[in-house]
This record gives sequence, structure tokens and C-alpha cells, in this order.
Amino acid sequence: MNGPTLPIRRVGIDTWRESVVFLHRDCPVVRAAGYQALAKVQVRANGQSLMAVLNVVDDACIVEPRELGLSEEAFRRLGLEAGHPACIEQAEPPASIAALHRKIAGERLARADLMAIVQDIAAGAYSKIELAAFVVATNQFELDRDEVLHLTEAMIAAGRRIDWQHEAGAGLVVDKHCIGGIPGNRSSLLVVPIVAALGMTCPKTSSRAITSPAGTADTMEVLADVELPLARLQQIVRTTQGCLAWGGTADLSPADDILISVERPLGIDSPGQMVASILSKKVAAGSTHLLLDIPVGPSAKVRSMAAAQRLKRLFEYVAARLGLELDAVITDGRQPIGRGIGPVLEARDVMQVLANDPDAPQDLRQKALRLAGRMIEFHPDVRGGDGYRIARDILDSGRALERMNAIVDAQGRRARPPEPGALQAEVCATAEGTIVGVNNLRLARIARLSGAPQVPGAGVDLQVQLGDHVQAGQVLYRIHAQFEADLELARRLAGDGHGYTIGAAELMPHDFASPPGVQA
Amino acid sequence: MNGPTLPIRRVGIDTWRESVVFLHRDCPVVRAAGYQALAKVQVRANGQSLMAVLNVVDDACIVEPRELGLSEEAFRRLGLEAGHPACIEQAEPPASIAALHRKIAGERLARADLMAIVQDIAAGAYSKIELAAFVVATNQFELDRDEVLHLTEAMIAAGRRIDWQHEAGAGLVVDKHCIGGIPGNRSSLLVVPIVAALGMTCPKTSSRAITSPAGTADTMEVLADVELPLARLQQIVRTTQGCLAWGGTADLSPADDILISVERPLGIDSPGQMVASILSKKVAAGSTHLLLDIPVGPSAKVRSMAAAQRLKRLFEYVAARLGLELDAVITDGRQPIGRGIGPVLEARDVMQVLANDPDAPQDLRQKALRLAGRMIEFHPDVRGGDGYRIARDILDSGRALERMNAIVDAQGRRARPPEPGALQAEVCATAEGTIVGVNNLRLARIARLSGAPQVPGAGVDLQVQLGDHVQAGQVLYRIHAQFEADLELARRLAGDGHGYTIGAAELMPHDFASPPGVQA
Repeated sequence: MNGPTLPIRRVGIDTWRESVVFLHRDCPVVRAAGYQALAKVQVRANGQSLMAVLNVVDDACIVEPRELGLSEEAFRRLGLEAGHPACIEQAEPPASIAALHRKIAGERLARADLMAIVQDIAAGAYSKIELAAFVVATNQFELDRDEVLHLTEAMIAAGRRIDWQHEAGAGLVVDKHCIGGIPGNRSSLLVVPIVAALGMTCPKTSSRAITSPAGTADTMEVLADVELPLARLQQIVRTTQGCLAWGGTADLSPADDILISVERPLGIDSPGQMVASILSKKVAAGSTHLLLDIPVGPSAKVRSMAAAQRLKRLFEYVAARLGLELDAVITDGRQPIGRGIGPVLEARDVMQVLANDPDAPQDLRQKALRLAGRMIEFHPDVRGGDGYRIARDILDSGRALERMNAIVDAQGRRARPPEPGALQAEVCATAEGTIVGVNNLRLARIARLSGAPQVPGAGVDLQVQLGDHVQAGQVLYRIHAQFEADLELARRLAGDGHGYTIGAAELMPHDFASPPGVQA
Repeated sequence: MNGPTLPIRRVGIDTWRESVVFLHRDCPVVRAAGYQALAKVQVRANGQSLMAVLNVVDDACIVEPRELGLSEEAFRRLGLEAGHPACIEQAEPPASIAALHRKIAGERLARADLMAIVQDIAAGAYSKIELAAFVVATNQFELDRDEVLHLTEAMIAAGRRIDWQHEAGAGLVVDKHCIGGIPGNRSSLLVVPIVAALGMTCPKTSSRAITSPAGTADTMEVLADVELPLARLQQIVRTTQGCLAWGGTADLSPADDILISVERPLGIDSPGQMVASILSKKVAAGSTHLLLDIPVGPSAKVRSMAAAQRLKRLFEYVAARLGLELDAVITDGRQPIGRGIGPVLEARDVMQVLANDPDAPQDLRQKALRLAGRMIEFHPDVRGGDGYRIARDILDSGRALERMNAIVDAQGRRARPPEPGALQAEVCATAEGTIVGVNNLRLARIARLSGAPQVPGAGVDLQVQLGDHVQAGQVLYRIHAQFEADLELARRLAGDGHGYTIGAAELMPHDFASPPGVQA
């Protein structure tokens, strides 16, 4: 059945990852569809097809009755010029909706079901509310470990897969990933040059911040270009063994990006979805070995050792079946790592550690060495237990700094790196005592309000950490901003609660790592 | 914390029931919020407050960088003039989101949790994806019967409640409701005048079609006005004991309307949600006694007798605790009722039955008499088993027609009722045989494509029913339309499959009502 044909109009509205069609209320298609906004429609032109949600418009300035308005996402997906005729009709729901309904009803899904669902999601055929339905129906109590495996496989199959055969001599392609939630935790910018300096292939693609004040890609961008086409990345890795690039250009696991656009505002990040998201991205990026960092703490993503162990086992199960060598490390997530929170301040910490500056944050140095050591032990010629020492030698000798400079030059060094925001506000202790708690979420939100990551120099610069004894009036941290309004917003939030708990030293929690079996 | 103040601009985009704020990408608020479309924002002005979802705009024709664009729904909710200054800031999630997360995690919710969630939904604080999350998390396997009760109570509490004390002499306010899904099933237009003629108070408010080719309100609108303010309705009921009005003006169970806007495109209509939706609307509308029609059939909403019985028990449990007298009747839903599908054709059927026209569809007459009889037995002075006879006497004597005319006159008779669509197409049997199956969904969709309910005269006029023997080439039904394009769309769908199964007489299914305990 063919619907009517109308010329395309690009409507400059960013509806995030959902394709929206705007039709005027007097458009014949709207009448036939029964005036229902939120209806699903299908747009076809030049052999291309697009599923979208309908919004009805009463203003001919936005779209005329005889035009077919497309949101930015829909326009981009269809890939045709404005004015091109396109055919529009009411869409049948995607075929995999039947499987979604079975999941909602509590059934276990087969591999073929998950393949069909993920293909439809990647093709943009699911509306936001259908995506939300999938995310809720597949939350932690609904997906068993084989379903997580099949979801991961489906997400890999729905996108592109990078092959580093020609770049990786030994056949080893190593990567590291942190499940997130700890501000300032920029160990990738240290781990990559350390392992690359040893000659291991480590082509790290990472994300920009989603809800945090900086992602690895945001911090690296302070130093170098991160938006690099794949061919360029492959050349860089051939020369330097490593890279630190933004993964968004590579179309890896596109269904994951679409699901995240709903999981984020819903605040849902269930173990099954997290495992499928991370492992699909890593396998698609061509990794053969992955070091996974799972921080645990009262304001981290994972809040108990038991939950961390369960998550670790799920990662291990799925990775093993995908043929991915995985080493999952549970780490201390009770407070931020390093001093800076925000791209410029974090890049400063990283460069201090690489330069063996005596003032460098030791917690960041130690964590990076520990993780790099574990990664080095993926190498068949390295004896178990030797990794840490090898990593330290590379860092102390200046070879890691040298390699980082090579990577930065290869990606394109920023001529004038941005500076920390010139506007500053100090946040001080209101009482004397010991720092017995640090709220990661609070500090992240304050850094975000100060302008990070959009303003790279904005953020928070921590002056004290867990266990420190402070006097009333002593500076806890400095907020940096570029704009007065941002500084004011961040300062006000810090005024409502600065994120540090100051109390008697005996209230200081035991080391998170005290339970047996934990690698600190 | 106060966000910046911007002048309001009304953006003529109908986003259905979701409030959307449109901000230009260069607006300072967008920068601070991190450019994230789908973020939740709070708009405040004049002591009014509104939660909305953010869409980012790149076109100053739609909204300027220093303007605050509001979708039609958001503009209506805020209720201020264009140009009025309003303050905008990033919204904290509504307080009840914590309870939603507990439901998603599989916990049972307490009455207070459901009250808080429904209040937030009615206040427009939930985004579409949060609504979808609630709908999925509360599907049939997740809500126990007390949760359904509490959800119903919360939905009643969140809206207005009509009191018919002054109109209902005996204190009895009777109503009937069908759970839907059967095309042409317009028995309300017969039942209301019959029971009103007996002096029982029956103020029926009903909906327009959502996904069907006609709702009761659409069909009544062929004959009379249905959009009546409450005071006017009360006056009509005082005079005629009955009315057949559209319920949308009365603000009854507004949370239900919002939930339906997500349940409909998701195609989710779980028993718990159905019970809460129907009973909250009925109690809010002031009914004391409700006759409920649950049709069962292979293409009805309820497809097995066991499911119908379970649904009936859930309705009975909740109604009893709400103090609502309920009589739930399981009926034959294997095919449409009456001949016409679409407002004008259905109204014709109804008037033929009321006029005792020998050509009137007997199935519609019989069903209406059976339901009216059960309703009449709600009256304390009527002996069990006498209802049907009383209803038949009222209909046969012409008193029901007389009362219908009184109601039509009181609501405002249409001077020139619309006619059946002049364009017609006949759909014929392709083989000889017995009609052994009728697909309700298919016929509804064909009627909808022909233009119903927006074009009142459009629809399908059935010529045969289950069990009839037909010859090849015999007319199964006529499609009526007003526009050639509509007729063509409907005819093409009918060409792909006309919705009738023609086979050997022995394939004819047993009467749906053969299991014990069923009232046919």
C-alpha cells in the first residue's frame, strides 16, 4: 500500500535519537491516521525507508499542509535533500514487537528474538516508548545470562566491526574499560601509553561524557584531536601501537547508542544491559583482551561487594562465550581518583603523572600502574606478578610520557590547549574533623554545573581526600568556571551540601577492600 | 535554585499528552543542561509549575535563543499568554520515580507509592518514557489485586468526581461498559434509553474512538451534540434520566487519559491497567451500579474463556472494595455486532432497532435487550429473571424510541444528520462455503482506512455473518467512503484479505458460550 507523496522539509528540531515526522493538521495523511500524534509512520523515498513518530503541527511556519517535515535525526537518517519527494504511510509495528511483548509478559527470549529486536532498534524502527518498554522488560530480574549473551551478540551483529589484524603484530589487541561513576578517574590516558610503549596494541576508543563532567574522549581532546576517521586511526596505531579516540565515528554497536538514549533519562543501568553495552562495543572495536575496572563504593555505580562479584561473574560468563579474554578488577570507588574533575583539570593530573612530577596525584598514579600491570600480564611472555613492575619502569623512565607525546602528535596536537577556568570559588570545611565520606555524585554534579565538559576548563579541583584531617575554614576544593552564571550555580549547589562528610576519625569506614578475594 | 527567565512562545506542535519545551541550541539553559535533548526541565511562572521534556531547536523561526518555546500541551497546561516571562531550570525527577524504580525491580508497591505515582502522572510530571516504564512494570505479571485496587483509588483521587445525588431519585446511578474490541457493538445507544424509560438514572459518558472506527460518543454525535458542560448534562439527566455524552470534558481520572496515550501505541492493555482504567472512570463519573460486557473471541481483546473468567474476578474484587455494584457478563465476541461499522452506519442500525424495523439487525437487538435486562435487575424492586422481559416490553412498545428522541432533543439534535458515504465498493466472496470465522481487527482496520470515525459516513456495512452459507461472488460487505483515496486504501486492504474465513460447515467453531457458567 502506498501513501501520498510530499516534498521533504528539514525541521530544525533535535529530538535526540528519535526520528520525528512533523505533519500539518490539515495534511491528508494526518486525517487518515486519525489525528493521532505519537502514531508511527513510515517514510519511503529512493529505496530508503524510515520509521518515525508523528507530531501534528498547527503552524505553517514549521511545516505546510503539503510538506513532510523531518526532525534532524530523521533528516540525517533518510539522507535526502530538502524538497525531495517522499511517500508517507501509517507504519505497521516492527515485526520484533511480538517478541518484545513476550518479554514484557515475562517470557525468556531466544537468540533469534533478540537478534530481530536489536536489528529493528539499530534500524531506528523503535519509538522512544518502545525502547523504554524494552529497557524495563529486560532489567535485571528479567534477563538470564544466556539472554545477556545473545543480546550482546545481537548488538555486535547490528553494527560495524573493526579488524586490527594488520596493526597488531602479536594478534593481541588489548583494551581497558571502567564501568564508570567515579569522577576524575582518567587512568586510560596513562594506561594506553604505558602498554603501547611496551609494544602492545591498544587502540582505545572511548565515549564523551553522558551524565558525567568528563569522558575519556573529552579529556584527551584537551590535548589532541579525537574525532578521527577509521583509516587515520589504523595508521596511528600502526605507528604508535596506541590511540585515544572518540568511538562515535566508527558506528560500533549502534543499537547500544540508541538504548542508552532511553536508559540515561530513565536512570536504568541494569547489569544485563551494562554487560551487553560494554562487551558489544569492545568486541566490535576489535579487542581480544579486556581489563575491566569495577569500582565499588557508597556513591559508586556498584555499592556492595556482593553486587560487584555478581556483576563480575556475568561479565566473565558472556566474555568467555564471545572469545574475549577478560580480567575484571574490583577497585576502590569510595571517592574521586586524582584531584581534577573536568577535562582540563584531569588532563593536568595525567600529564603530571606522566612527567613524574613529585606533586602528581599519587592515587591516580597507583591506580594506573595497577591496571597497566594487569594488562601487561595479558602478554604471553610476561610472568604473572611482573606486570606492575614493568609498568612502573616504563612510567618512571619517561617512556610512557614519550609515547603519550607520540600519540598526541599523531592524532593532532592542540596548538593552544585550554586553561583551567579563570573564575574560581573556594569551598571550605565548616568544622574541624576527619574526612570520613566523599559523595561522588555530588561532586560530579557541581563540576557539571560549573560548565564541564562543554567548557573544558570548568570543573572542581580537590584539595583533600578520605582520611585527611581538616580545620574549619580549610579549603576542600576549588570550583573553576568560565562564566559567572555557571560559577554561581555550582557554588550554590556546593553551599547546599559540599559532598564531604567530616566527622570523628573512628567513623572512617574500613578499607573497601577488606573483604577477602578483592584486588585493591 | 532559580534558572534564567525567558518570554514564553507558543510553538504550534501537538505532542499529544506530553509537555515539550523547545529551546534554541544557543540558549544559555541548553548549554548548562549539556545539550541533551530528552532532559527534563521545570518551567515556573506566576506560581504555576510545569514539568516538560526538552527538544533542542536549531531554527530561530521556531524559537529564538532568548525564547522559551512550549508545545500545545505545555502551553495549555501553564495557561499563560505568549510573551509572559517564565523561569526555566533542569528538573529533578519527580519524587515518585523512586517508587517506579522499585516496581521495575519487581517489588510490590504500597498504596502510598501508587498514590504518589498517579498524582505525579496526573500533574504531567512523567515523560513519555517514564510512563512507558510504568506501564511495562505494572503489566499483568507484576500487579497483584490489591495493587490494582490502590492504583484505581489513586486514579479516582487524582481527578474530579461527579455527584448525581440531586438527579438520581432512588440513589441508583447505573452505567454499562464494554471492554471493547468488537466493531459495531453500539448497544449503549439502546440500553440507555431503555433503562432511562423505566426511570433509572443512567448518565452515560463515553469516549471517542481511540483505535477503533467509532466510539459510542462518535456514533451518538451523528444524532446529537455530545460535547456538553457538566451543568448542562445534569439538567438533561434530571429531565430524561439518561444521557449519551462525551466524557472528555469532565476531567474524570486524568491520569488514565495520560497512561492510555502510552498504552495505545505500545499495544499494552493488561488486565490490571484495564480494570483500574475502567473502574476509576466509572466511580469518578458517579456510578453506583455497573454492567460490564466482556466479549470473548479469537479476534476479541479477550481470547479464551479462562482469561475472561480471571479478568471478571479481578473486576469483581476491585469493584467490591470500591463499593461499586458490578455485574460482569461474558459475551460472544467472535464477530461484529449489528451490520454497520462506522458512526453513521452504526447509528442507522440503532435507530432501526429502536423503531422496531423488521429489517433491524437482530443480533444487536438481542444483545441490547440482554444487557438492559441485567441492568434493570439492579433495581431493588425487580425480581431476578424479569429484566429481559421488562426491557423487551419497553423496546417493543416504542417507549425506548420515545426516550431516545427526548435525549437527542435535550442534548441538541443534529439538524442534518450525515449520510452514509456516497462512494461505495463491494467486497465479495471468492469461493462458495460457510462463514466459519470473522476477523474483528481486520474489519475495524478496513473501516478506519475508509475514513471512520473522522468521516462519519465512512465505514463498512456487513451483509453476512458467522454460519451463513455464501456463493462465490456474493457480497460480504460494502465499504462506504467520502473520498476516492480513502475508498482505494480500504479496498486495497480488503483485497489483501477481506477478514472472512469461508470453509466447510463442520469447521464452524462451537458456540463460544458452550463452557459452563457463561451467559450468552
